[in-house]
Amino acid sequence: MAHTGYPKGQARREEILTAAVRAFANAGYSGASILEIAAACNITRAGLMHHFRSKEELLIAVLERRESLDREVFRTHDSRRPDGLGVLRGMVALARHNETVPGLVQLYVVVSAESTSPDHPAHDYMHENYRRVRSGIAWALRGAQRAGILAPGIDPALGAVRLLALEEGLQRQWLDDPDGISLAGTLEATVSEMLTVPLWSADEG
Amino acid sequence: MAHTGYPKGQARREEILTAAVRAFANAGYSGASILEIAAACNITRAGLMHHFRSKEELLIAVLERRESLDREVFRTHDSRRPDGLGVLRGMVALARHNETVPGLVQLYVVVSAESTSPDHPAHDYMHENYRRVRSGIAWALRGAQRAGILAPGIDPALGAVRLLALEEGLQRQWLDDPDGISLAGTLEATVSEMLTVPLWSADEG
Repeated sequence: MAHTGYPKGQARREEILTAAVRAFANAGYSGASILEIAAACNITRAGLMHHFRSKEELLIAVLERRESLDREVFRTHDSRRPDGLGVLRGMVALARHNETVPGLVQLYVVVSAESTSPDHPAHDYMHENYRRVRSGIAWALRGAQRAGILAPGIDPALGAVRLLALEEGLQRQWLDDPDGISLAGTLEATVSEMLTVPLWSADEG
Repeated sequence: MAHTGYPKGQARREEILTAAVRAFANAGYSGASILEIAAACNITRAGLMHHFRSKEELLIAVLERRESLDREVFRTHDSRRPDGLGVLRGMVALARHNETVPGLVQLYVVVSAESTSPDHPAHDYMHENYRRVRSGIAWALRGAQRAGILAPGIDPALGAVRLLALEEGLQRQWLDDPDGISLAGTLEATVSEMLTVPLWSADEG
């Protein structure tokens, strides 16, 4: 039973996560209803609670899922390259990937905004997320500077604040006008302007 | 009665709007409760409904109030200057002003994110807002280009997308870390880099 039950439980868990992404993206954490998420999976509230003990636990699971998907995209580039090009390419690749998953982008935009309230369950998660992402970009820009490929006059710490702000602001505009706004293209153009070498080698991109 | 009642009604209306800004900023449109907003003003739900017939009407009134406050700040600069400097200065002045009203910034960030859902009551308002602000910035950058003060290689339409994205992304990071992130300073540095002349004359700023 335990053996055959495991994949079935996993499949159900996946189904709940997928429904939760949609619900949190559309109504936010406070507006989403556990009952509706359960109904979308044809299970009861108690059935859902068997997999996720609270709405809060479900939200954190959704955010962690999104983060691990992001990491997979990121890892297709060598993010440890000391010249920072791997991280910068990873950022652009992630933006390209995001253009294929508008529901996840909307989830991120909505939960990120909501979590500005100190009592939101994702407040600490998002605070840590901002700190981590910003310091990763700053690390890459410092590496580019040491490698002599960062455009003159760019401060790595400030450049990281700007790149992250641009990326997130673009997500909102792109959700509003996906045909008029290029999420990945605009980010790529900006990253490219910060470098004195092409972002991609001839065999990449 | 009507004569003396008017200022009193106005004061009550203001009080409700102030409480609503706080509620929408903290819990979003879906999470905020009319009952709690009324309670914060020491009135009943029916008393609040006398001034705003629905939660939706209250949200739109709050957004319009924010917009008219923004316009006042903007108007301290000559936004019709054909070289676009008035609009660009206005943007920076607005960011400076925003640093003094975190509750309004949070309201904007939260409602803007929530309204990515097509059935959100502010969906159309925000869509129009993005269109209007972006075309205003593009108009200013085209003016700067014609006046010969735009840095070479900047496309006005794309520059507008980027500046707006940067401004909004910065708001979120600033709410997360108001001491570490300079909202106005970062925007001002970016705008200045887009110009071949100083953003401010010697007697301004």
